[in-house]
Amino acid sequence: MAKQALSAELAALLATRRDGYGMPRDFYHNDALYPAEVAQIWNRGWLFAGFAVEIPKPGDYLTLTVDSTPVLVMRDDHHEVRAFHNVCRHRGTVLCRKDSGHARAVVCPYHAWTYSRQGDLIACHGMQEDVDKSALGLKPLHAEVCTGLIYISLAETPPAFAALRERFAAAARPQGFERARIAKVVDYDVESNWKLVWENNRECFHCTPCHPQYVKANFDIYEEEFASAAIKQKMAAAVARTQSKWAAQGIEITLQHGGLATFPDPERNLWFAADRTVMVEGFASESMNGERVSTLMGDYADSDVGVLRMRSMPNFWVHGSCDHAVAARLLPAGPRTTKVRGYWLVHEDAVEGRDYDLERMLPFWALTNEQDWEICKWQQKGVDSIGYEPGPLSTRKEYNVDAFIRWYLQQMRGDGVAAPQLRIA
Amino acid sequence: MAKQALSAELAALLATRRDGYGMPRDFYHNDALYPAEVAQIWNRGWLFAGFAVEIPKPGDYLTLTVDSTPVLVMRDDHHEVRAFHNVCRHRGTVLCRKDSGHARAVVCPYHAWTYSRQGDLIACHGMQEDVDKSALGLKPLHAEVCTGLIYISLAETPPAFAALRERFAAAARPQGFERARIAKVVDYDVESNWKLVWENNRECFHCTPCHPQYVKANFDIYEEEFASAAIKQKMAAAVARTQSKWAAQGIEITLQHGGLATFPDPERNLWFAADRTVMVEGFASESMNGERVSTLMGDYADSDVGVLRMRSMPNFWVHGSCDHAVAARLLPAGPRTTKVRGYWLVHEDAVEGRDYDLERMLPFWALTNEQDWEICKWQQKGVDSIGYEPGPLSTRKEYNVDAFIRWYLQQMRGDGVAAPQLRIA
Amino acid sequence: MAKQALSAELAALLATRRDGYGMPRDFYHNDALYPAEVAQIWNRGWLFAGFAVEIPKPGDYLTLTVDSTPVLVMRDDHHEVRAFHNVCRHRGTVLCRKDSGHARAVVCPYHAWTYSRQGDLIACHGMQEDVDKSALGLKPLHAEVCTGLIYISLAETPPAFAALRERFAAAARPQGFERARIAKVVDYDVESNWKLVWENNRECFHCTPCHPQYVKANFDIYEEEFASAAIKQKMAAAVARTQSKWAAQGIEITLQHGGLATFPDPERNLWFAADRTVMVEGFASESMNGERVSTLMGDYADSDVGVLRMRSMPNFWVHGSCDHAVAARLLPAGPRTTKVRGYWLVHEDAVEGRDYDLERMLPFWALTNEQDWEICKWQQKGVDSIGYEPGPLSTRKEYNVDAFIRWYLQQMRGDGVAAPQLRIA
Repeated sequence: MAKQALSAELAALLATRRDGYGMPRDFYHNDALYPAEVAQIWNRGWLFAGFAVEIPKPGDYLTLTVDSTPVLVMRDDHHEVRAFHNVCRHRGTVLCRKDSGHARAVVCPYHAWTYSRQGDLIACHGMQEDVDKSALGLKPLHAEVCTGLIYISLAETPPAFAALRERFAAAARPQGFERARIAKVVDYDVESNWKLVWENNRECFHCTPCHPQYVKANFDIYEEEFASAAIKQKMAAAVARTQSKWAAQGIEITLQHGGLATFPDPERNLWFAADRTVMVEGFASESMNGERVSTLMGDYADSDVGVLRMRSMPNFWVHGSCDHAVAARLLPAGPRTTKVRGYWLVHEDAVEGRDYDLERMLPFWALTNEQDWEICKWQQKGVDSIGYEPGPLSTRKEYNVDAFIRWYLQQMRGDGVAAPQLRIA
Repeated sequence: MAKQALSAELAALLATRRDGYGMPRDFYHNDALYPAEVAQIWNRGWLFAGFAVEIPKPGDYLTLTVDSTPVLVMRDDHHEVRAFHNVCRHRGTVLCRKDSGHARAVVCPYHAWTYSRQGDLIACHGMQEDVDKSALGLKPLHAEVCTGLIYISLAETPPAFAALRERFAAAARPQGFERARIAKVVDYDVESNWKLVWENNRECFHCTPCHPQYVKANFDIYEEEFASAAIKQKMAAAVARTQSKWAAQGIEITLQHGGLATFPDPERNLWFAADRTVMVEGFASESMNGERVSTLMGDYADSDVGVLRMRSMPNFWVHGSCDHAVAARLLPAGPRTTKVRGYWLVHEDAVEGRDYDLERMLPFWALTNEQDWEICKWQQKGVDSIGYEPGPLSTRKEYNVDAFIRWYLQQMRGDGVAAPQLRIA
Repeated sequence: MAKQALSAELAALLATRRDGYGMPRDFYHNDALYPAEVAQIWNRGWLFAGFAVEIPKPGDYLTLTVDSTPVLVMRDDHHEVRAFHNVCRHRGTVLCRKDSGHARAVVCPYHAWTYSRQGDLIACHGMQEDVDKSALGLKPLHAEVCTGLIYISLAETPPAFAALRERFAAAARPQGFERARIAKVVDYDVESNWKLVWENNRECFHCTPCHPQYVKANFDIYEEEFASAAIKQKMAAAVARTQSKWAAQGIEITLQHGGLATFPDPERNLWFAADRTVMVEGFASESMNGERVSTLMGDYADSDVGVLRMRSMPNFWVHGSCDHAVAARLLPAGPRTTKVRGYWLVHEDAVEGRDYDLERMLPFWALTNEQDWEICKWQQKGVDSIGYEPGPLSTRKEYNVDAFIRWYLQQMRGDGVAAPQLRIA
């Protein structure tokens, strides 16, 4: 039941955005846009699914739902991470229903069709003899593991992954994601369209009013051009200290001038980025008082490593301190709901109560998350107004919001490829 | 605000189903289909509304809601069961608001328009003198009572009822529905489209994985062609035992070969069916341990009566043991919600605590129901996936799922009658 | 993503109403109509926003949401009441998030853009130097204060306000709304379309079945033509008593014949009205037993003042007794949800516990409100039925329901102005 006319309407809508300004109301208010976003962005790109350490052994699995599409990520008998559509090839029932678990084989709870961990249909007792089992394996999805991060794509032909792999592997090497321990997971339902979550994430203009704990630790709010001499001097000192210590081991401060690294970069087609920044003097970790909150993580041998920051469109970011890392996975669940999972990671041998306390580790980012989701909720209510008119973005502080919008428009236009027709829900 | 173009789109959608396979995603995922289903199926066919014993006396009534249409079923002054649209002819307010009750007359709670139990408008004080009361009686609906079952139809000209009456009356005679006692009613909100509830109901392929208690009592999972000699022998013995005892009284095992009776039968236009099956040795009743859970029901004089099974499209089924019967009434309440009422019936003179205990009687079917609704919920989530693709149906075990789909398509095509135009919700 | 074809469909729908009857099902059941109602009525007319006494000092504010549009009403530095779109001119975030409060300046919680109480943008640190602050003040809305009532309009060019001002000022003078104390506020979510709330409000045909406490106090259920001689005599006595006492002070019984004053009056384009009625002998106030429930309000020096009644389309009514007044503010929050705020007002110096008890003051109207919202809920369920067919309205008792419908159709037709195109939600 496609609506033939809407494709032209979508193109017309995309053309309404004025350079240097936010996006008009219909981008957030018109629910009919959402299916097109799912089709153009979420069903096409690379999505962070979870950490490889969540599924260490063959048969371990995790699940996620992208809009209304259930996905199964499983370690197979050969220790490879695979992803499948998490629905039975028989009647379509969801196969694995828990967030994570372990399975000898994937047995459909409905009629017991049984799939190997490689996704092959190995039993379907009760079916006619001439059923072609070889044609009824689980539908595979593209999956990649890079420095401990699992990415999947629902696309038939996803974008190239090699560049992300190269960049992330280099940047994240000392953080040790691939052997970390997940100390805590928190799930949030954010009451806003997923784009507002990204627009919020892509600037630290709001950090002073909204995140008092965050601005104590980081230089994000200081842009090079406008920073005071005192701030510049502090940053330079921190950079010098870190660089001299770590250059040989590849720990490099890549963003030395405050503010946020430029990301995404639609003109260069960059949907991922990784940087390392220094922290404010006295901060060894992104914690409330700046003290370390766990034992050193990965290959770090000293606290003076700044903050590793990686992110990829449309659904992942992580901040790594010397002792722990905090990641976020976004999943859209309707035009006005974004499901966010927050992860807190520590060294693989860290033991709660001995090496870290959640009471000390969680607040810095738990607060930052909750402050941001509250912003997003009121942002959604605001852009739903007939009185909302996009305002000018700060060229000093919101260059990345502008970049996000340009990236979004590029994706929705489909790089010259005809956009799929909108469908009535 | 009809959408002119969707009729052709509906026809196109109906044509997408491949023979022998399930229905494609849009049949379950596209909410715009639901109003067409209500129009073509729910507002046209015969719907089980309840049991005549629920409204034994003149003025007794029960209510139900078909999608968004409230229905009133009332016993009139002449002891006839009548059905009406349960809305006032004045401003449209719902008249009777409880599930069931008793009324001297139907008095609208809003402005006290008063209708007789025959539906005639008998008072509307405050209206102008020239109001034609004779034109403002409650809108009647077709209603039929057959062997204690009340059926209603919202259609102007419903399908013929005579064949159902004949078949059900013969099959259900000894069960005594028309004088039973309702021991328990349980209401369920199933989180799936109503079609998934039927597809689940129309096969016992899932019984071994999902209903351990059910398969102990019944032979449904054994098809004649594939059953072992031992199973065939057990069934034959049970058939012989029952037949020899009851032939003179019309208690006949009509399904002697295991599996499920073929139903529905769109080619023969059969939307109802009634059969009697044998139970496994040691089972006198569909109960957890096979023991009787109440005194004998209806005309039964002995436990050896197997299971009476009756069902009618689109909303009724019942299983009758020697001592109790369990029925289900389905009502759609949106594209992803099906309201199911479960009924447990016993002999009219059975007394709780003396003749039956709910703790012993309920579990067999309460479990079966809850197991099925859980299946349906995950089935809905699965077929909402972009990765769902209809798989092959088992010709051995899912012939009735195929039959249901063929029946559904036949109804939606309207037997050559032009389908009503889809409307935007 | 406008739907080009629906404008003609809207016109066709509006033409389906039969004179003297209720509106057909689609007016209440088809959710696609709601955005057109918001555009044609709620975003165009004058809306009661609250009482001026809620924001006595500069910087005091109150907020409300009209469908999805947040509104800020603030007393400015010059003691004027102003209204603005309650969204930041930067990214559109909702500015003031509480129901009411006080602010030195309006500071956006997101990026600290700061607006004066006059709505001027006075600071936006972090923005580029060449930002034109003068173009980025809060978007003003029309606001008027009349006899203590604050009205706002989202329209660019709202209807003339002068006639309402003149009528309300004269009628409400002795009630003292402009200096009253708000003793209680209660918020209700009514589960029906807003039109059903008005249809319920515009007749007292339902008062005898639904509001036993209300009909004891008021003559609304007696129309002149049909009232008994005894009733007429009682009313005349009450009128005479009040008139003789108050004529010099402008307290005039304007509705002397029972029933309800005619309102709205689409033919004369009247969207507001004010009247004073007498009460039943023994009733000094709209209270459960007729006794006064607070000290005298406003300029009243005696209980014998009847009931002042004022209302304006589409969202306000108030009943004023000698000692307290009860108002209602309606706001639509979707096609099937109406948010109603109830206000109880007393003399500005009245002190709870000494001069009034809420336990005595609230029940009369709290009951009336709750009884009406229950009616509206069942009315919505009824008109959603395929069996609902508009019935004849009582020419004796529902002339104002008819008037409301005529007014509604007039507004939706836009007085000859082309209706805005319907949009998909």
